[in-house]
Amino acid sequence: MSLLVHKYGGTSVGSIERIEAVADRVAGTLAAGHQIVVVVSAMSGETNRLTSLAHEITERPSSREMDVLLASGEQVSIALLAMALQKRGIDSQSFLGDQIPFKTDSSHERARIEFVAPNKLLEVVGRGAVPVVAGFQGVDDVGDVTTIGRGGSDTSAVAIAHAVDAAECLIYTDVAGVYTADPRIVDKAARLAYVDFEEMLEMASLGAKVLHTRAVEYAHKNNVPMRVLSSFEDGEGTLVTSEMEHMEKPLVSAVTHERDEAKLTLLRVNDVPGIAWKILGPIGDADIMVDMIVQNVSVEGHTDFSFTVKRADYLRAKDLLEQSVRDNGFNECTVTGDDSIAKVTIVGVGMRSHAGVATTMFETLANENINIQMISTSEIKISVVIDERYVELAVRSLHDAFELDT
Amino acid sequence: MSLLVHKYGGTSVGSIERIEAVADRVAGTLAAGHQIVVVVSAMSGETNRLTSLAHEITERPSSREMDVLLASGEQVSIALLAMALQKRGIDSQSFLGDQIPFKTDSSHERARIEFVAPNKLLEVVGRGAVPVVAGFQGVDDVGDVTTIGRGGSDTSAVAIAHAVDAAECLIYTDVAGVYTADPRIVDKAARLAYVDFEEMLEMASLGAKVLHTRAVEYAHKNNVPMRVLSSFEDGEGTLVTSEMEHMEKPLVSAVTHERDEAKLTLLRVNDVPGIAWKILGPIGDADIMVDMIVQNVSVEGHTDFSFTVKRADYLRAKDLLEQSVRDNGFNECTVTGDDSIAKVTIVGVGMRSHAGVATTMFETLANENINIQMISTSEIKISVVIDERYVELAVRSLHDAFELDT
Repeated sequence: MSLLVHKYGGTSVGSIERIEAVADRVAGTLAAGHQIVVVVSAMSGETNRLTSLAHEITERPSSREMDVLLASGEQVSIALLAMALQKRGIDSQSFLGDQIPFKTDSSHERARIEFVAPNKLLEVVGRGAVPVVAGFQGVDDVGDVTTIGRGGSDTSAVAIAHAVDAAECLIYTDVAGVYTADPRIVDKAARLAYVDFEEMLEMASLGAKVLHTRAVEYAHKNNVPMRVLSSFEDGEGTLVTSEMEHMEKPLVSAVTHERDEAKLTLLRVNDVPGIAWKILGPIGDADIMVDMIVQNVSVEGHTDFSFTVKRADYLRAKDLLEQSVRDNGFNECTVTGDDSIAKVTIVGVGMRSHAGVATTMFETLANENINIQMISTSEIKISVVIDERYVELAVRSLHDAFELDT
Repeated sequence: MSLLVHKYGGTSVGSIERIEAVADRVAGTLAAGHQIVVVVSAMSGETNRLTSLAHEITERPSSREMDVLLASGEQVSIALLAMALQKRGIDSQSFLGDQIPFKTDSSHERARIEFVAPNKLLEVVGRGAVPVVAGFQGVDDVGDVTTIGRGGSDTSAVAIAHAVDAAECLIYTDVAGVYTADPRIVDKAARLAYVDFEEMLEMASLGAKVLHTRAVEYAHKNNVPMRVLSSFEDGEGTLVTSEMEHMEKPLVSAVTHERDEAKLTLLRVNDVPGIAWKILGPIGDADIMVDMIVQNVSVEGHTDFSFTVKRADYLRAKDLLEQSVRDNGFNECTVTGDDSIAKVTIVGVGMRSHAGVATTMFETLANENINIQMISTSEIKISVVIDERYVELAVRSLHDAFELDT
């Protein structure tokens, strides 16, 4: 018998039919002898509906009231799921953020979790009942409703799993787990039984949108085992856990890719201190996320400086860059860019202790005549920027080269 | 400068456009130098939508979870109205039941109000801001969400007005006030500037559906002046207050009517103790509301016993009555009924001290050849049951007879 946290996202509770299916799954897990705390999101579409209502009133609704508004979405799902469980003869009780309490700071719309009290949840679990907790929401010191922003409900679930010391935090989604590559591109893509926290973090931030980075970080920091699995079919999913727990790790665990990218380059910029700040400052000020940044070695006091942004931000970033060049008097400097690039990444904690992974990657791409435009590495991943046209070819050949289908 | 409570029902906040109109009205009242606490219902349709979701899951959802579910409706409206006020440069803050706190007992779906704390609301008002409070909902001793059931938001508003010692509790509805008769029937029906609490109670329970009886009772008990007025047009509305405050009262304030009635009669029933209980017990057990009850004097040990029910309950009540007759062996007894009757009532606190009102009423109806089938009276009202076909004629002639248009 284990104490488990089940988290169901908006699609998993998107209709009464889906809520009934979730109740069946929870009933099955109980029947198997486990104890469960369930965390749910708002029904899919509800958060958008509420946000639209607010935006009909004003472009900039106050954060405090936005939180009151949006928190109502999860309030509806917890009540409905508790009813569905009760219909099955399962004792169940819903919990709002302030009823746990799920304490956060007062940064509305992006509150940081301070403390999750386990007592009431454990009391309910202890009497054989199922607490159904509203994800995404918390309460601050003065009793105001807060929401924790991006990755909300996943992070809520992990924080609750940590608080009640659950054996696992199961995140039910619309995919069966984490794959060695996108199955839509690679037929032979295989579900990974295990992924290391650090690998998952790289994958999450690199286009594999299964779990939110923030939830994985929270789980990693507090060593809460997470499992990603489908709420639409049965299966073991993928266990996200610490490196130490498995004997042997493959060199490379997965190939991920991201299409939605654009590249900007500043050619022949003066290589003086503060240059990166001068270039990227206005970009950051405009709320444009910069991803890869590459600066070549300096030649004769000049350097080339490249970075990638989301494709939707490309034109705006290019304008800002050209403005920077004029403002700073970089007269010899040229701005170039390309909005049809993609990023392909191999990820694996095994890279730490093995040389030769980069060589294999570059050789594989060269054999396919794919030109590498930028390279960026960390201890456990290598990302390359290539022409978007070759993304499928690159992913498939790398998947083969690292034998990820085995 | 007065401290006022404004209450807006579901229709008044039924769309973003309507919420903006409410915000304009609140802004105008502030500009006139008043302080305001606003109480709102859920957007019209929302409570039905949520109830339907629950009933898709189960016929009998648990009361605790039903309250969690339904309370989300008001949560949405308070956030949206606070945003709309903020857009107008008005400092505003929403309040959920537990944030006030609005303390109730734990009878979910029909909780009784125990205590409304004024401090936080007065603090917000004191800094020139507008608290926007979720009607209908409260919190119990263990921190669970409760709802107060029928007449919810009106009663919430009165309780809050009482707590903050407001000068008036203004109930904004879709009618311009309380009228001397239904304006759809009587062209000359006039808006009443004042109505006594007791008159309002009689009218509310007798088919004039402007205010909920429970809210009026609460206001009466705590002497909170209420004002009924339209959120769709300007006007003074009708002040509902205590008798003592006005010098002179008319004999009769209004003529009300109710069509949706049916009459059942038991002819020649044995006049023995316990007979009313034997007849009406099964009716009440079946959750059928009995309104007027009339028993004639006994003749030769037999009496006739009549009562009225809602027309929709007529056939069910008749079946139960026939069953009672058989079960109790009332062999000489006959059950008759009529489901095309209406009730017409004259109401006025002035009746207390004046004779002759009943005479005028009966004379007026006799002059129009309208037969009176049942009569029931209280200190401040006289109700008669007549054939439904004559209801307009009766109301108009009584309106004229008591000179209510002046």
